[in-house]
Amino acid sequence: MTARNVLFIMCDQLRHDHLGCAGHPYLRTPNIDALARRGVRFSQAYVASGVCGPSRMSYYTGRYPSSHGATWNRVPLGVGEMTLGEYLRTAGRELSLAGKTHVMPDEDGIRRLGIAHGSDLATRLRAGYFEELDRHDGHHAEPHSAYADYLRAQGYDSADPWTDYVISAIDENGQVVSGWNMRNVHLPARVAEAHSETAYTTERAMEFIEARGDDPWVLHLSLVKPHWPYMAPAPYHQRYTLDQCLPLHRDPAELENAHPVAAAYRTQEECVNFMRAEVSDKVRPAYQGLIEQVDDHLGRLWELLERTGRWQDTLVVFTADHGDFLGDHWLGEKELFYDTVQKVPMIVYDPSAEADASRGTVDERFVSCVDVAPTILQALGLPAFDHRIEGQSLLAALRGQDAPHREFVVSELDYSFRKARLVLGRQPDECRAWMVRTQRWKYVHWMGLRPQLFDLARDPGELQDLGEDASLEGVRAEMREHLLTWFTRLKPRVTVDNALVAAKTDVYKKAGVFYGVW
Amino acid sequence: MTARNVLFIMCDQLRHDHLGCAGHPYLRTPNIDALARRGVRFSQAYVASGVCGPSRMSYYTGRYPSSHGATWNRVPLGVGEMTLGEYLRTAGRELSLAGKTHVMPDEDGIRRLGIAHGSDLATRLRAGYFEELDRHDGHHAEPHSAYADYLRAQGYDSADPWTDYVISAIDENGQVVSGWNMRNVHLPARVAEAHSETAYTTERAMEFIEARGDDPWVLHLSLVKPHWPYMAPAPYHQRYTLDQCLPLHRDPAELENAHPVAAAYRTQEECVNFMRAEVSDKVRPAYQGLIEQVDDHLGRLWELLERTGRWQDTLVVFTADHGDFLGDHWLGEKELFYDTVQKVPMIVYDPSAEADASRGTVDERFVSCVDVAPTILQALGLPAFDHRIEGQSLLAALRGQDAPHREFVVSELDYSFRKARLVLGRQPDECRAWMVRTQRWKYVHWMGLRPQLFDLARDPGELQDLGEDASLEGVRAEMREHLLTWFTRLKPRVTVDNALVAAKTDVYKKAGVFYGVW
Repeated sequence: MTARNVLFIMCDQLRHDHLGCAGHPYLRTPNIDALARRGVRFSQAYVASGVCGPSRMSYYTGRYPSSHGATWNRVPLGVGEMTLGEYLRTAGRELSLAGKTHVMPDEDGIRRLGIAHGSDLATRLRAGYFEELDRHDGHHAEPHSAYADYLRAQGYDSADPWTDYVISAIDENGQVVSGWNMRNVHLPARVAEAHSETAYTTERAMEFIEARGDDPWVLHLSLVKPHWPYMAPAPYHQRYTLDQCLPLHRDPAELENAHPVAAAYRTQEECVNFMRAEVSDKVRPAYQGLIEQVDDHLGRLWELLERTGRWQDTLVVFTADHGDFLGDHWLGEKELFYDTVQKVPMIVYDPSAEADASRGTVDERFVSCVDVAPTILQALGLPAFDHRIEGQSLLAALRGQDAPHREFVVSELDYSFRKARLVLGRQPDECRAWMVRTQRWKYVHWMGLRPQLFDLARDPGELQDLGEDASLEGVRAEMREHLLTWFTRLKPRVTVDNALVAAKTDVYKKAGVFYGVW
Repeated sequence: MTARNVLFIMCDQLRHDHLGCAGHPYLRTPNIDALARRGVRFSQAYVASGVCGPSRMSYYTGRYPSSHGATWNRVPLGVGEMTLGEYLRTAGRELSLAGKTHVMPDEDGIRRLGIAHGSDLATRLRAGYFEELDRHDGHHAEPHSAYADYLRAQGYDSADPWTDYVISAIDENGQVVSGWNMRNVHLPARVAEAHSETAYTTERAMEFIEARGDDPWVLHLSLVKPHWPYMAPAPYHQRYTLDQCLPLHRDPAELENAHPVAAAYRTQEECVNFMRAEVSDKVRPAYQGLIEQVDDHLGRLWELLERTGRWQDTLVVFTADHGDFLGDHWLGEKELFYDTVQKVPMIVYDPSAEADASRGTVDERFVSCVDVAPTILQALGLPAFDHRIEGQSLLAALRGQDAPHREFVVSELDYSFRKARLVLGRQPDECRAWMVRTQRWKYVHWMGLRPQLFDLARDPGELQDLGEDASLEGVRAEMREHLLTWFTRLKPRVTVDNALVAAKTDVYKKAGVFYGVW
């Protein structure tokens, strides 16, 4: 059976281990847990980059950063790349958006190809072929956005209500203070919970679903939380005490003979601060509160699906673009290759009866964020575009069908925009890295620098870097073989699909070419 | 000093060993040899694919097939890719063309991006950003081309004078026979030498150069010969006897336990025929005649440069897109990874006084076809576009300056359109291969099939495939490490140049983003 609708939910910066169903001992996520009971939770799901932009472009294209080229947040997806929204449109469908995409328009490419500035095509390309019901990228002021207008209409009187209310608080002295300063995130946001980002964006999604009635739809509900600024609205700002948070995971030995890139990252402000326990102590409870808030709103959404009968015909995917170190490994933010950041929640609900046998199970096979786009296309019964898409549909796994499964997953990083590059004295095209993770090992291949290696059987917490252990050169060589295999499977031949290749194979005399004839 | 003009000459299917200056004992190429005395001959120059289309797209983009995506002849270069012509145009220069490009228009991409069919931009994109003075791709009938019109004006009365005169002959019985049939290529073409493809295309180039006077220009003179059909006009059809040709280079042992892809190629018509000595015996003298004809016309061109003073201000590159097996290794045509096909002539003349010390020398360092575009850009003093271009300029080598040099070269193949794929029962996306060639070794990495390995120190003729020699697994592993290194250096981040990365490194607070602040 094919699904009629798709609800593709993404959280921003949500750690894989911050869900009740993933074993968090205190965090309450009953609604996400309920989705896991309806569908399959993939416990070894990895992003293709631990950074918003490249990770999302991999979700949206089904391709790795080495193929789609948007290697970091500030790198636009080239106009030559196609996205899920465009694939859907070739079939007369739309990919609607409520929330964040992090799509950076390729203005140079649009100009180069003479695409008129105000044209519908330019608008679509700039939006990554999303139909933007309401785009809200979060993490920076958007004073002219629909959300800002909404806030002003609710009485938040400000030219920039996001800065002044959503991420601000009133401190103990009655002063307005900013959530940009992590010292303040124990305070409740000045915005009412009902007007917060999570509430607002979920509301837009619910309005859309309700308005569609029985007309089919594909919706990306892309919540900007629990991404920083970590300011939670009441009552979520105080839902958790520090002793209900996951403890800091780090070892002083990690700072000795640290990998040069990790050491360089630790000179960056976010790491300098998160290395101080008072910072993570303050942030972790707020981070958990933001997640519980997300879960509560997903509960409202589930009720809508129930009331409208949409659980019968809607594929639901729940995931995140990457995690958050929160001080683990002496790091803040994301990017580097620890599971903390690279492994993400991934729950897929397939309404088809074929998936009944798998409901509520945990699938421990490796999956990748590039698998989401092909899963959606297959669920809707649309062409696979498999000359471009590098991931593979997860439906076979959900439906108990045979399918090849990965021996390893790969993720990438381009740190050329980061201070770490300057610390290391490297050029902008010398800053890429690739992670290969098998069941047993994690290997990181850095351009021009020594590799990293973790033995996950003996050291599941990734505290001991064996990248220079001479006895393990054989393991590292094997991991490089995997990486080479991965590179050879990338799909650069984007202008001709596989069916056309097949149709044109060994056909040339018809075109009047008779070479090799005696 | 920067050059004012560039003359970028390409022959089609010209073997590296079919030049006097490269040691051919009989073939007369005095004008090409003279160019080698004026400049530097690179004796280890390799293409990025042994097939016209992908090789040329690598010359024209400075990128490998794994990056530009045009992996075989019938695969268009995507509109997202930029070419030398477009780089030149950003600086107000044009890349003019006389002859062949093998550019396949990306009609799907043009349509997808709404580029108006008859627009100047669509025309440029369809032409790979060449200004087509006179395009003549050869190797198939072009009855509506300027060349066909020219032939008709000379009295060759035919709807398709190329088929009826240029590649036809009159046999011993007075019958018109076709040069498509290799049994006929000892006969003279029905076209007069002065009206043949080589003469015509060179004439167009000379007209252009003369007409430009002192206005600067960049010209791609791209001769379709000595590519098949191997029909030479008199007197070149009988310039050489078989004993003045290079002997067949092949060993019966090559047919035993042959690599599966080589064995599959040998079922294709061009190989089936070239495996018969009578075929190569007939083709080789004609092939050499076609090369001598090219050389004679280059002599006329050199005289024009002399007469107009253009040797003082013109960079000249002479090369080919790949070689021709002519029966060597029991193969016809090209594609597979023997030096016969992958190594090409490469002579570069730099008018700058800085290059005086290197004139007439042979440079044995590895160079690649992707180096030509950056050489031209540097010679003209234009930006390097080094976030896209993967080759490196050869000017440092010519001018005796320090520059990194390659430890290995890489070439690629996608045989998905060939009968060999069907013979092997493989899918269209399972047919790629990569060659890594160091001074000592040649390794070929085939998707899903055993590798090939040749020890060029002991077996310079590449007759003994050591791909399964257990004692050499260490060598093969080392070659795979080189291949991995090559993959990591490809340049997918095409939408942001290195200067912009540098300018935006560690800059985010200006954009109103203050993460990681305590």
